[in-house]
Amino acid sequence: MKLDNLIGERFKERPSECAIDSHALMIRGGYMKYVANGIFSSYTPLKRITRKIEQIIREEMDAIDGQEVMFPVVLPASLWQKSGRYSSVGSELVRFLDRNKSPHLLAMTHEEAAVSLVREYGQSYAKYPFMVYQIQTKFRDEPRPRGGLIRVREFTMKDAYSFHVSYEDLNEYFKRCYTAYERIFARAGIPETVAISADSGMMGGKVSYEFVILTPVGEDSIAVCQNAGCGYRANVEAAESIVENSRDAVSQPLELVATPGMGTIEELCGFLNIRPEKSCKAVMYQKNADDSYVLAFIRGDLDINETKLANHLKCDVHPAALGEDSGLFAGYTGPYGLDLADSGLTVLFDGSLKGENNMATGANKSGYHYTGLDISRDIGEVEYFDLAKITDGGICPQCKKASIKLSRGIEVGHIFQLGTKYTESMEMTYLDASGQPKYPVMGCYGIGVGRLAAAICEASHDEYGPIWPVSVAPWQVHICAVRSDEEQVKTAADKLYSELSDRGIEVIYDDRNTSAGVMFSDADLLGVPLRAVISPRNLKEGCVEITGRDKKLSVKEPTESCAQVIADIIADMQKVTHT
Amino acid sequence: MKLDNLIGERFKERPSECAIDSHALMIRGGYMKYVANGIFSSYTPLKRITRKIEQIIREEMDAIDGQEVMFPVVLPASLWQKSGRYSSVGSELVRFLDRNKSPHLLAMTHEEAAVSLVREYGQSYAKYPFMVYQIQTKFRDEPRPRGGLIRVREFTMKDAYSFHVSYEDLNEYFKRCYTAYERIFARAGIPETVAISADSGMMGGKVSYEFVILTPVGEDSIAVCQNAGCGYRANVEAAESIVENSRDAVSQPLELVATPGMGTIEELCGFLNIRPEKSCKAVMYQKNADDSYVLAFIRGDLDINETKLANHLKCDVHPAALGEDSGLFAGYTGPYGLDLADSGLTVLFDGSLKGENNMATGANKSGYHYTGLDISRDIGEVEYFDLAKITDGGICPQCKKASIKLSRGIEVGHIFQLGTKYTESMEMTYLDASGQPKYPVMGCYGIGVGRLAAAICEASHDEYGPIWPVSVAPWQVHICAVRSDEEQVKTAADKLYSELSDRGIEVIYDDRNTSAGVMFSDADLLGVPLRAVISPRNLKEGCVEITGRDKKLSVKEPTESCAQVIADIIADMQKVTHT
Repeated sequence: MKLDNLIGERFKERPSECAIDSHALMIRGGYMKYVANGIFSSYTPLKRITRKIEQIIREEMDAIDGQEVMFPVVLPASLWQKSGRYSSVGSELVRFLDRNKSPHLLAMTHEEAAVSLVREYGQSYAKYPFMVYQIQTKFRDEPRPRGGLIRVREFTMKDAYSFHVSYEDLNEYFKRCYTAYERIFARAGIPETVAISADSGMMGGKVSYEFVILTPVGEDSIAVCQNAGCGYRANVEAAESIVENSRDAVSQPLELVATPGMGTIEELCGFLNIRPEKSCKAVMYQKNADDSYVLAFIRGDLDINETKLANHLKCDVHPAALGEDSGLFAGYTGPYGLDLADSGLTVLFDGSLKGENNMATGANKSGYHYTGLDISRDIGEVEYFDLAKITDGGICPQCKKASIKLSRGIEVGHIFQLGTKYTESMEMTYLDASGQPKYPVMGCYGIGVGRLAAAICEASHDEYGPIWPVSVAPWQVHICAVRSDEEQVKTAADKLYSELSDRGIEVIYDDRNTSAGVMFSDADLLGVPLRAVISPRNLKEGCVEITGRDKKLSVKEPTESCAQVIADIIADMQKVTHT
Repeated sequence: MKLDNLIGERFKERPSECAIDSHALMIRGGYMKYVANGIFSSYTPLKRITRKIEQIIREEMDAIDGQEVMFPVVLPASLWQKSGRYSSVGSELVRFLDRNKSPHLLAMTHEEAAVSLVREYGQSYAKYPFMVYQIQTKFRDEPRPRGGLIRVREFTMKDAYSFHVSYEDLNEYFKRCYTAYERIFARAGIPETVAISADSGMMGGKVSYEFVILTPVGEDSIAVCQNAGCGYRANVEAAESIVENSRDAVSQPLELVATPGMGTIEELCGFLNIRPEKSCKAVMYQKNADDSYVLAFIRGDLDINETKLANHLKCDVHPAALGEDSGLFAGYTGPYGLDLADSGLTVLFDGSLKGENNMATGANKSGYHYTGLDISRDIGEVEYFDLAKITDGGICPQCKKASIKLSRGIEVGHIFQLGTKYTESMEMTYLDASGQPKYPVMGCYGIGVGRLAAAICEASHDEYGPIWPVSVAPWQVHICAVRSDEEQVKTAADKLYSELSDRGIEVIYDDRNTSAGVMFSDADLLGVPLRAVISPRNLKEGCVEITGRDKKLSVKEPTESCAQVIADIIADMQKVTHT
């Protein structure tokens, strides 16, 4: 098509609200437009990119025997009530009443809908394994949308659900899907994607991997072991926190100390002149389901990993708003002398406190702390859980060396072993070979299409624009007719446009009567892999200039043969991304 | 793919909830599954059909210079507040508050979003005309979903929006789009679609056409003029009602008559022994916006067309729930002696009452009517509007003959001339050649993808299943290996399957060890255009039996050449639907 007709505005200035390059370039290049917080419209270039990504995903899902289906965006609440997610998922789930006051929701994922779709088909073991997938719009009411298409509220996602008669079979299929994901990301032009252990979040499964592009602008924190022989990589949300405590030889007696105005760990430790490691911090939450309080104790230098906490509680939480009725004192809560009678309070201890003594902690009385706390002596036997965030320089859960480095990345895919969580709660069974009813084991597999487009842009751009891999580029060739007002230029450019189009090559054709500078900066913003420049100067030499958007190629070809040369270069580029 | 692996259940019994054949066949054939009222999931066969329909639509929209974009499903209320539709559209619009209590909605159409997307691009007259379209999931909270995919709450729709500098230009483009629609329906295998004048509904435009398949099971009422020379066709919602009244020579005096328990027109006319044409009926509504009452008077034998009423009021209405405060008496309301002071009541008269005398009507007093009403004498000058439904045998608005016949049809597409309704309300302007700001003129163009699939099935099926046109069929060839337990059969069928697949033909392959009866009834339900039967009997003759799903073709071909013969037949079939 002609660039002159392409709807969308391109401009030079980086919009101030864009924190990352892909967001800035996709706004500047006329790829998308802000509609509301975390909600965008796509112009044609982005639509063409996402359609190509979707087709790559579709082919690879079909290649591992997936069957494309379509689930509804709007689901009746009853489906999610059955699985328990209607109440366990927080305010990221949009709930509404329809005109008959019947509760509905905007589905963020479709485990329940998938179980419901295949339950009759999957009544006999002989039908297993099988997988269904869809590519569809989803809405998740994110608290903090950001980074353009990286974290949005409305997005297009490929979500797939597999069903198996055993964990062994799921493991086998999981490997096939893992490999299909590697092929998808390689074909989409980002072969350097790494897979990391991840938290399963509200999906509720056990084994799960994220596919991540490591980049400083990524919003995911990733714990990477620096020990060359180890290779441990995990999302910080999922990484086990290992803390080695050194108990003091002598336990001091418990002592009440007046600490007026020392409500934070920093203030307290400064006042008492102790290291934060010798303090026991109370972090307070409320369960989303019933607003009951959750009190998590952790060593003062560490932070609570809310994902681990929510997983442990099997319920989302939010930071507590302490009411008068709570019996808790912000800044002065501690495990000793805590009145738990009838409070409905959940109290948890992080493993970092295990075996500790001589700790400072709140005295459950405004303006007072205790020193000399020895949990086993003063509180008695308590159970410890892993609730802490892994730290930079922390201990690797795999090789046990203090070799953890925190990096950042963008999650572009996620695969989960769900087990029987959904088939049990929704009572889907099959009869095994001996006629016994069993719950199928499930896996689920997601890829965010728009986020993948943004991640490709993050991984492949320069200051002037995206450098799209040919497999996902909105067009394959960008013709610039410089000085199209000269008849010779216009004729040659028109001819090349039709020759390339006849060969089935996707061409964006700039025949505007504008400066070469404007043309080239627009071409940079559209990021099409090959550029063909026809200008009076080139024509004088009887040539067309062909350059790669990645600057690796720059050749002049005779006008007569250049259509064929371009077709050959495109074919070569496609070979690279298709293997 | 192998039929044995196809997820979804096929069965013989017609589900009792299915009123129309396409619904029954698509449930029986494993095309879709009920999720909630008006909400379905699609299995792979339907997904393959809709993807093909979408591709046909996409090609034809591209051919009239459309640019594919994507608007959000969830829109901020502010966009629709700007256009006024946030309050003017009734409860079919799903509204919800996001986590920050900000009002949002599920968009049913995207006029506002389209204006918002292109307003910067369209600042100069030189950029016009242009058109954007999308293919996307939509949700409309229909009061009465029915007919399977014919009237659902969640659906996939192609919606397109064109922008012009003049009505002349819109008219030109409208013709191109009209032709593109004809091509789409022809390519999808239903060339007999007819275009009819339609109501623009909440779109707010003036000229609009529906593309309709005439079928007795259709849910739209269509007025068709039987006068051969006329050709008038219109949706009943839009058809002008023309009524010729014959005023009696002598007006009787107004007389109060006790009519206890005669609250309906039938009862009243029976009691007074008059024809319904001599009664004046009151029909009461409330405006959705503020619940204020609307009182429409109409001749007793006619019905109010709620669409015309809503268009006249520029606001949706619902049948009134008469409160004590209304001052209205159900069954006894009439235009004479009606106390209108401070009531906020809107009173309207349908054209069918114009010039009438000697009418019976309610006396605004429970149990009493007046006879002898002469509106011009007793009420004075009132304005009459066209609010009545056109009737079977009624007068054609075009040729003025009493030749209207009411038929039924399924609307599969709708094109509207929106004019400047949205560009004015949303303040989108361009500068014309003389530098003056002007409002662009818009058109909009919809096709429901799922409804089109159902309509194709309605237009093309027999009692055993759908007969899909090759252009949209889920597969092109259905191989039945009868007695696949016999090695010779299995070998020949496997070979044909791979030969056809190698030729790029889409094959569903039934190699189950089941009876020919089960195989053939499943094949009928899947409705694939060509069937290749390999059986011991056929192989004895060295042949494969090739039959068309439409029963028009039945040949036996030697096994060696049959792959080529099938490929040739498919190519011929494709030629028919592609021209």
